[in-house]
Amino acid sequence: MTSILLKNVIHEQRPCDVHIVNNRIATIAPAVAAATTTPADQVIDGHGRLAVMPAFYNSHTHAAMTVLRGYADDLELFTWLSKYIWPAEERLSAEDIYAGTRLANLEMIKSGTVFYNDMYWLPEATLRAVDEMGMRAMIGMLMICGEDGEILPRNLNASRPLLERADSLPERIRISYAPHAVYTVSEKTLRRLADDAREQGRYVHIHASETRREVQDCQNAHGGLSPIAYLDQLGVLSERTILAHCVHLSEDDIAIIRERGAVISHMPASNMKLSNGNFNFQAVVEKGRCRVTIGTDGCASNNNLSMLEEMKLVALLGKATSGDPTVAKDGLVYDMATRNAAEAFGLDAGVVAEGKLADLILVELDHPAMVGDYNIVANLVYAADTSVVHSVICDGRVLMENHHVPGEDEIVAKAREACRRIKP
Amino acid sequence: MTSILLKNVIHEQRPCDVHIVNNRIATIAPAVAAATTTPADQVIDGHGRLAVMPAFYNSHTHAAMTVLRGYADDLELFTWLSKYIWPAEERLSAEDIYAGTRLANLEMIKSGTVFYNDMYWLPEATLRAVDEMGMRAMIGMLMICGEDGEILPRNLNASRPLLERADSLPERIRISYAPHAVYTVSEKTLRRLADDAREQGRYVHIHASETRREVQDCQNAHGGLSPIAYLDQLGVLSERTILAHCVHLSEDDIAIIRERGAVISHMPASNMKLSNGNFNFQAVVEKGRCRVTIGTDGCASNNNLSMLEEMKLVALLGKATSGDPTVAKDGLVYDMATRNAAEAFGLDAGVVAEGKLADLILVELDHPAMVGDYNIVANLVYAADTSVVHSVICDGRVLMENHHVPGEDEIVAKAREACRRIKP
Repeated sequence: MTSILLKNVIHEQRPCDVHIVNNRIATIAPAVAAATTTPADQVIDGHGRLAVMPAFYNSHTHAAMTVLRGYADDLELFTWLSKYIWPAEERLSAEDIYAGTRLANLEMIKSGTVFYNDMYWLPEATLRAVDEMGMRAMIGMLMICGEDGEILPRNLNASRPLLERADSLPERIRISYAPHAVYTVSEKTLRRLADDAREQGRYVHIHASETRREVQDCQNAHGGLSPIAYLDQLGVLSERTILAHCVHLSEDDIAIIRERGAVISHMPASNMKLSNGNFNFQAVVEKGRCRVTIGTDGCASNNNLSMLEEMKLVALLGKATSGDPTVAKDGLVYDMATRNAAEAFGLDAGVVAEGKLADLILVELDHPAMVGDYNIVANLVYAADTSVVHSVICDGRVLMENHHVPGEDEIVAKAREACRRIKP
Repeated sequence: MTSILLKNVIHEQRPCDVHIVNNRIATIAPAVAAATTTPADQVIDGHGRLAVMPAFYNSHTHAAMTVLRGYADDLELFTWLSKYIWPAEERLSAEDIYAGTRLANLEMIKSGTVFYNDMYWLPEATLRAVDEMGMRAMIGMLMICGEDGEILPRNLNASRPLLERADSLPERIRISYAPHAVYTVSEKTLRRLADDAREQGRYVHIHASETRREVQDCQNAHGGLSPIAYLDQLGVLSERTILAHCVHLSEDDIAIIRERGAVISHMPASNMKLSNGNFNFQAVVEKGRCRVTIGTDGCASNNNLSMLEEMKLVALLGKATSGDPTVAKDGLVYDMATRNAAEAFGLDAGVVAEGKLADLILVELDHPAMVGDYNIVANLVYAADTSVVHSVICDGRVLMENHHVPGEDEIVAKAREACRRIKP
């Protein structure tokens, strides 16, 4: 049994002591004098100036792409991919992916994120970095098909070790099927992966309806079916499906997604940067009542992994797109990044309450961006950046204390070495 | 004579020593061994891991509104103003404005901003805070007219001390005329202020074409003239006019602004949050070749003062609105926040070069968001937040060293006290 005491931290505007035993919040009680406090293996004293809040859950990443941050920007999508990103990715070794994922983990921890839903090449290297650094993740077995409609051998080879290890991993790490998209994975493969996922109780993670062209091509190839309708016909959509982007949805698509309980990952920064089009927040979230979470995407198209920044973009873009400043209110957006995301990934977390998994952040209330101090959620969504995050606890383990993550200098140095290898 | 040595800092990818004498950059030379380095009153050692870059210039603020951060959000514009913001502003004392401006100064310094163009009530309190904390600012004498078309007596009373002190202020502080908008200031007053400004060599700072309704009302009231055409007819537009927002511009408006050399302050966060409409970046900046700078607006409608965040929003919104990911490239956006803004406000600064005013920031190259390290400007625009800013120099004076601004705790505490007074 291990225990952590968060002493004299602010919870719902009151000073509290939060006691964590193993990986769950055991008790939340009014702060008491030091002498009578329950002993603990580790104590963080908030001195009444740190608020304890739920950590963030990032629903779509390509974590290792931190090593491609700033590599190529401001380009037309196909030029960007074919001339820059794909050739660079061809050169990525497992060591580069490992270095990039560690940098991503560092960046996410520093911004209060404890979980991410990833999809990238050589996922065993990602798994290693996540395992070592103590984060939660759902790691996708990324798959693309060749002209024969079968999964590329190198994708299969990269995935096999993950499937073999899946049952022996810590609970905080899970393995998902990650067919890339409807235009890169064949019909028969999508059906088979959906069946395998169902049998094994795994999630399916896929890009869907990201660009207008993807929707048109799908309709042309599959008898007028949109990517959503097509995936539904193949049996892919369930409560364990994560649909990344969903920028171009018809009313029928929204109804299908709602009915199947599939989860959308909304990524305003990436969609804006690549000019994908405008996610219709009002229609999908507020009227459509779909399950919608927030993702940052990879660092080549964002170019950071801050859920604090992404929440603000969700709120701003929801208003700008609808022309209505009452759309995408701060509380709703905050829930999307915390409790709703935890629920979507089957984690008993996302709120600060006794019995819940201890995925927590401590927020500096004396930070300039947290004053005026009328509304902590509004400040987190609209004003804060990574510098407000003082400490981070994931699954009952302190990953960052007082802005410091063990080994940060070496993580950054190794990532920079990877960049030297990648640069043409 | 005072001098500062920035030792072993990175300038254009090379280690350099930057010597600042009084308020200007005296020399930039390859970094040399410590023993032979020119002596200086103050030395900051970059150890080869800090980049020296130009500081940011914020072209439209209501700085003191930090004390209204999070006070009311996600509301329809008129409800927000009439039920929340205006009643709260009625209660603001000079002490509140002073406390709020100090917090704003702290927040801006921490995010690398050394100058702002302000417009708010009781500007003498703002002036005091700016003077004490060593920032640059252009402080507006905010004016609104009563039903008789004359400036409200309380605005005149608040402005008089500024005009009286204008000639004895440090060079880094200037006083401007700030008629609020065409719908709150009468025709005769606008004409008179334009004349006074011209005679005295002062800037005019005004909100213009922020909402569709403002444009329609102006057209109805003034024979079909848009706010821009109307202001031009009154003689308000010149190279010393700052037009805040300019969301709704016709092609004719764009041509007038370009011809007069007037300066636009573009504020994506505020415009998105209040659903003002979409600033047409392509038409105004890229095709229109207007002089466009970047502003954060006040903290009730943003809700922070970070130019780093605002640059990203300019780039993302430019792409999202145009549907073209090659619009609003990082280098252009960066220039808008640095050299173009300095030029717009008549400051011989905005670039790191010998002879220029020493308005500089030191950026942490070992920060996770600065790796991949392919492109420092891309990283600043797309990935960085305030936590990358290590030190800030304004007008040859160190305002922040190693993330610390003298007196920060007291500044935050006093702002929080102001919030207690303001809360109904």
